[in-house]
Amino acid sequence: MRILVLGGDGFCGWPTALHLSAQGHDVAIVDNLSRRRIDEELGVQSLTPISDIETRLAAWTEATGRTIEFHPLTVGKDYDGLLEILTSWRPEAMVHFAEQRAAPYSMKSAQHKRYTVDNNLNATNDVLAAIVDSGLDIHLAHLGTMGVYGYGTAGAAIPEGYLTVKVETPEGWVEREILYPANPGSIYHMTKTQDALLFQFYAKNDKLRITDLHQGIVWGCQTAETRLDERLINRFDYDGDYGTVLNRFLIQAAVGYPLTVHGTGGQTRAFINIQDTVRCIELALKHPPKRGDRVKVMNQMTECHRVRDLAGLVSRLTGAEIAHLPNPRQEADENELLVENRRLLGYGLEPITLADGLLIEATEIARRYAERADLAKIPCVSHWNAERAAAAQSTDPTGKAAVAAE
Amino acid sequence: MRILVLGGDGFCGWPTALHLSAQGHDVAIVDNLSRRRIDEELGVQSLTPISDIETRLAAWTEATGRTIEFHPLTVGKDYDGLLEILTSWRPEAMVHFAEQRAAPYSMKSAQHKRYTVDNNLNATNDVLAAIVDSGLDIHLAHLGTMGVYGYGTAGAAIPEGYLTVKVETPEGWVEREILYPANPGSIYHMTKTQDALLFQFYAKNDKLRITDLHQGIVWGCQTAETRLDERLINRFDYDGDYGTVLNRFLIQAAVGYPLTVHGTGGQTRAFINIQDTVRCIELALKHPPKRGDRVKVMNQMTECHRVRDLAGLVSRLTGAEIAHLPNPRQEADENELLVENRRLLGYGLEPITLADGLLIEATEIARRYAERADLAKIPCVSHWNAERAAAAQSTDPTGKAAVAAE
Repeated sequence: MRILVLGGDGFCGWPTALHLSAQGHDVAIVDNLSRRRIDEELGVQSLTPISDIETRLAAWTEATGRTIEFHPLTVGKDYDGLLEILTSWRPEAMVHFAEQRAAPYSMKSAQHKRYTVDNNLNATNDVLAAIVDSGLDIHLAHLGTMGVYGYGTAGAAIPEGYLTVKVETPEGWVEREILYPANPGSIYHMTKTQDALLFQFYAKNDKLRITDLHQGIVWGCQTAETRLDERLINRFDYDGDYGTVLNRFLIQAAVGYPLTVHGTGGQTRAFINIQDTVRCIELALKHPPKRGDRVKVMNQMTECHRVRDLAGLVSRLTGAEIAHLPNPRQEADENELLVENRRLLGYGLEPITLADGLLIEATEIARRYAERADLAKIPCVSHWNAERAAAAQSTDPTGKAAVAAE
Repeated sequence: MRILVLGGDGFCGWPTALHLSAQGHDVAIVDNLSRRRIDEELGVQSLTPISDIETRLAAWTEATGRTIEFHPLTVGKDYDGLLEILTSWRPEAMVHFAEQRAAPYSMKSAQHKRYTVDNNLNATNDVLAAIVDSGLDIHLAHLGTMGVYGYGTAGAAIPEGYLTVKVETPEGWVEREILYPANPGSIYHMTKTQDALLFQFYAKNDKLRITDLHQGIVWGCQTAETRLDERLINRFDYDGDYGTVLNRFLIQAAVGYPLTVHGTGGQTRAFINIQDTVRCIELALKHPPKRGDRVKVMNQMTECHRVRDLAGLVSRLTGAEIAHLPNPRQEADENELLVENRRLLGYGLEPITLADGLLIEATEIARRYAERADLAKIPCVSHWNAERAAAAQSTDPTGKAAVAAE
């Protein structure tokens, strides 16, 4: 299959491009390297020493004999450039990672809210408009987020995208299937719920074939392909903006820093290992919707855990302490979460469990590169609103967050 | 009340600014005059001879002794400029019309889709982010559209924004209230459903006070204030992109052109007179939500009609013929529509009915300015997708659409 990976230099995009190439697909990457520029803006770097894109791609060819083309281009701004790639290279599928993907980053300031909305929505609309313009029947797989569901399921499992509800009519209550009602918790998550409306529209109006993968929080760093050569290593973020919760705990444990749990840690979240992410994307590309189908939505996650239970797990594994900090996010302290994920399991996904994979991750990445960590960058310094910011300043049980944030 | 009208030079924005000023409010307008530039792009002009903004504002002061400030600024691009107006002028309310508002225009080409998404979503997000940044408790009233509901009500009346549904839980089916499921019919309508998610988020996260007015199709041109002086005249669009259905029929009748009904004309739509629009907006500003409330949604419409019945009404009034053309829109040929609008009626709105107002409109505007009409601009030359475009080329019962479209 000829597959264009948009955002193929990022944390999920890079290992996806390699995995698809390793499986024998023809892969090309489109990326503007914005993720590397955000590292510079935030004054942070990946815990792992990532190579520049040219070195990465040369190492891939050296290791495997396979070639991945690279197009430096901003999806959402350079529409003509994107359309030119589609009409000349004629991909059969596209994977769309070309969005700003961190909730705390999207909430840092008005400028970060503006960047996230502008970047993500124009990117998705440009991709869809370009597919229509090209006249090609390209299957688009997009990385969404479990966060579009808003964690409000009243004890029922979150279905895969659509919810059966009953609505009142003159003939009584009748069943209808609707897009799961959105209740996003950040500007970033909100853009993904807005993406869902773009997909719904283009699938209906232009019969585009679209798969939206609502992914859980990704943990882990390496895949079979990124382990082939150190120049292929994937990025590992542990900072307060881009570091997802489990990776943050691992690096905190490795450097002897308390595991920082926001609020009670009663937030239940869905998780998936990065190796499973790349497998899921290939499975999604192998099982596309038919032309005229509605958007195919799959929940791309394998386990649900409470944040405090994860902290407990990492603490038992490593001996690290646990510290409770005020939650910077405007969200409920405690929530239940049950998620339907039968589709990807049905296509043959065999999940890597936290219980099996966590220790490898802790030693392979967190301990090995611990000396590269900048402890000052670990706390989350984005606050969802003025009240949450004030709460963070007045309470700091560890005494470390405020210092580190300065 | 100190009220900032964003998009105050447009078809609804201009008469709203005048009405609010006439009611004794302090009014300022922000506009980048993009609607006038789109006239130039399309090679069309308002049927009525509208004055430039400086002349309009001078005429208003001359006629009433009142002053309306004007800030030339692109909402959604010049964030710092917008924030500066908020912090220095400190409005108590804002009315947000600063969006591209024509469905056919939004579907003309990839570039028009891109412009509509980029303009509308960045505008709305900038307005919301700037209110948060300003620290002011500004009430925002936004002009939405009945089109967010997607006309799929299975015989029940469309409620005001929120729908009570039953969802299945381990304890059985329980009632929940959700934002009405969106099913937009064009890129333009889609941006309004995406706006609704922006409003939901900022109301929840930042306790902004927001009213979203889901407006029907506006007919008519003049209000009590725009009639005071010919330099205050409101714009009247009759072209295939911006001309709404009833105004198009009126000008077609006035120039002896057949009334062009798309498809069977069985589409039922909600309508409101422009004079009622401006009254509704003042009523909405007088009845704001409280801080911490969810978004207040009201349906701003007064009557529902089938398009073919409207054509019949205009035909009987004027003697014009009716011509059926292929529908350029991807939509159902026939639909029912019942709409709840008790809130604005409860605040005292006394609607102007089509039966009462249509003849005045036909004589005051359509016949009076008929010699300014460019007949070649009447047909809708935007097609929702390739199939609709092909259908339009192969079938043209009047023989005029194709000629005019060339």
